[in-house]
Amino acid sequence: MREFKRLTPYREALKLLLNDIEEINEVEEVSLEDAIGRVLAEDVVSSIDLPPFDRAAVDGYALRAEDTFRAREYSPVELRVIDEIVAGQESGAKVEPGTAVKLTTGAKIPEGANAVLMQEMAEREGGVIRVLRPVAPGQNVAFAGEDVGKGEVILKKGQVLRPQDIALLKATGFKSVKVKRKPHVGIIVTGSELIEEFDEEKLKAGKILESNSVMLKGLVRQYFGEPVFYGIIADDERLIGEAISRAKEENDLVLVTGGSAFGDTDFAHRFIKLLFHGTTIKPGRPIGYGERVFVMSGYPVAVFAQFHLYVKHALAKLVGARNYEVRVRARLKERVSSQLGRCEFVKVWYEKGEARPIKKRGSGIISSLVGSNGFILIPEDSEGYLEGEGVEVVLY
Amino acid sequence: MREFKRLTPYREALKLLLNDIEEINEVEEVSLEDAIGRVLAEDVVSSIDLPPFDRAAVDGYALRAEDTFRAREYSPVELRVIDEIVAGQESGAKVEPGTAVKLTTGAKIPEGANAVLMQEMAEREGGVIRVLRPVAPGQNVAFAGEDVGKGEVILKKGQVLRPQDIALLKATGFKSVKVKRKPHVGIIVTGSELIEEFDEEKLKAGKILESNSVMLKGLVRQYFGEPVFYGIIADDERLIGEAISRAKEENDLVLVTGGSAFGDTDFAHRFIKLLFHGTTIKPGRPIGYGERVFVMSGYPVAVFAQFHLYVKHALAKLVGARNYEVRVRARLKERVSSQLGRCEFVKVWYEKGEARPIKKRGSGIISSLVGSNGFILIPEDSEGYLEGEGVEVVLY
Repeated sequence: MREFKRLTPYREALKLLLNDIEEINEVEEVSLEDAIGRVLAEDVVSSIDLPPFDRAAVDGYALRAEDTFRAREYSPVELRVIDEIVAGQESGAKVEPGTAVKLTTGAKIPEGANAVLMQEMAEREGGVIRVLRPVAPGQNVAFAGEDVGKGEVILKKGQVLRPQDIALLKATGFKSVKVKRKPHVGIIVTGSELIEEFDEEKLKAGKILESNSVMLKGLVRQYFGEPVFYGIIADDERLIGEAISRAKEENDLVLVTGGSAFGDTDFAHRFIKLLFHGTTIKPGRPIGYGERVFVMSGYPVAVFAQFHLYVKHALAKLVGARNYEVRVRARLKERVSSQLGRCEFVKVWYEKGEARPIKKRGSGIISSLVGSNGFILIPEDSEGYLEGEGVEVVLY
Repeated sequence: MREFKRLTPYREALKLLLNDIEEINEVEEVSLEDAIGRVLAEDVVSSIDLPPFDRAAVDGYALRAEDTFRAREYSPVELRVIDEIVAGQESGAKVEPGTAVKLTTGAKIPEGANAVLMQEMAEREGGVIRVLRPVAPGQNVAFAGEDVGKGEVILKKGQVLRPQDIALLKATGFKSVKVKRKPHVGIIVTGSELIEEFDEEKLKAGKILESNSVMLKGLVRQYFGEPVFYGIIADDERLIGEAISRAKEENDLVLVTGGSAFGDTDFAHRFIKLLFHGTTIKPGRPIGYGERVFVMSGYPVAVFAQFHLYVKHALAKLVGARNYEVRVRARLKERVSSQLGRCEFVKVWYEKGEARPIKKRGSGIISSLVGSNGFILIPEDSEGYLEGEGVEVVLY
């Protein structure tokens, strides 16, 4: 039986992978509502000032600040109220010396005025207000363009759009936005031992319920892709070859699980010119990649690690996404050891600045994924970390 | 003009809110694929052992460990290979003293065997293998139930389901899962100054593009809800009253933006018996809540803060969600000041263990949300934090 002659270091393989992946050029124009979670295909420039006009930041009176400079409590300045408007209305009046316009928060400052006196600070009697203290020029005014200036880049290419980004697009007049087409990701699950539905007899006789496809579909969707499932394929060289060749044709990326090592029933890698096969990651060592096809492990925990260490980054590169990973600093709650020469993917539970390693480590132990919310990586040249050491956790 | 007589402290108001919100009882049974992002309605118990049988953890030979105890390199033990199986097949053979069964990773350990010798460790010649070193009982065997035992709780009520959780459900035989019904959330946007579509003339004349609805729709979806938009309602007491009463009828929760203070055009709060109105949060002070209705600000930044400080937690309580917020520890990169008596929502950019406060702070500045990825809260009794101080960041 062949073994891996050399394991490619994790980051070396990642580099080979990312050099091979080309960003998708196709762009889709989608409504703002549908754009959340999508990746911006180009820089977005505002075509308006936001706010579009100088506006009142409070309810009160628009006036000329100069008129109030000599106002004192014992010698108030009186101004005549010549108009009253609410936000959304425009006053036809011009604020001349000695006059003011009543307005509500958000209303456009009328011509001639350069400040707003808060309503609570004015004493009103009929058509006249008494100003007790000076008002500075610009006070309580939100100036045109102070949020966003016309011509300003408001969002950058590669941004994964969030509700607040969409709000800014809406506020600057956009109805739709250009995002990258979703990469299509073919998923092929191989293994004669796999069954799709619960069957007690079969489970007792050595079959196992397939769970990689539903996990990978979810992960692919989470990271910008559209999964296409090609079903469970038995360990048959011809069938696997056919499925891979069809999936390659129809997708931007293909994930094949099972049969990634050199066992008698490991066929998938025979159909692809691999850029690397076998890397230092643990679990997930037998991963291979070439011609936009990943040959992945059969065990779900290894597949999960391979996805987060390689596939996720390939998907992000395909769409040019920038902010797709949450990395946090943490203190390790318990020591964790690692094999020299291997890049170990250690599942952790991150909470309140601390990362607790999950002890159950076998790649067959799916429940260990459920009990974790992130991972740390122990590089090849380290034998592990001590309790209390600072680590970087990638949350998932 | 009335003002808030007293601002309810942030946490006191949150407590009043959460005491008032009752968890939804309705449950939906959804396919595993549709369950991602949904909230588990009950504890899930496995009805099988996982793995369902003792299985080989490597490719190799199933044997009786006892047979190998005397094996040495200079005096190998020979075993007769009586069967060959691959994963998914069951051997009809029983491993008697002096025999072994060849198998692949994942295959069921045949009767009589209690350990697996790695293929690379065996010298094979025809129907016989030579064992050079002793094999310990249980070696390279993954035992039935070592991942999950029959009857074990694999996922707890309130879990927000992730791809890996779905994988475990699939692996233990589930095809569907019971999740909480999505809360329906009515969204009413009020303000005569608001327009729906770009119109340069109107924007110059004091109108403003409405952006709260699309932001709130996105946030509601992000936090387990189904938004129902009731459109933009002018500042008209009767129309607003009608919209609120209809939305209350049709939804689990209602969000009304605009007109939450005591201005002449602030009507929304007149229709609801509020549990609180005016809290110490900044921005977003005029928030009110009662009868499952939130009366929120008009400015998007204030609405965003009110959503994260109150509405999000109400939604999580409605569905009983547990893991819905990511809180990380960080070092403050610059000092940040706050007004005593106010609970300040400070937007930050979190990266590599550091939180940089976003300086543009006005509640009209939507671009400040775009440049941030989380917030810190400065409580009422603090005047702020110094550069380098440890803070807790809630990521968004």
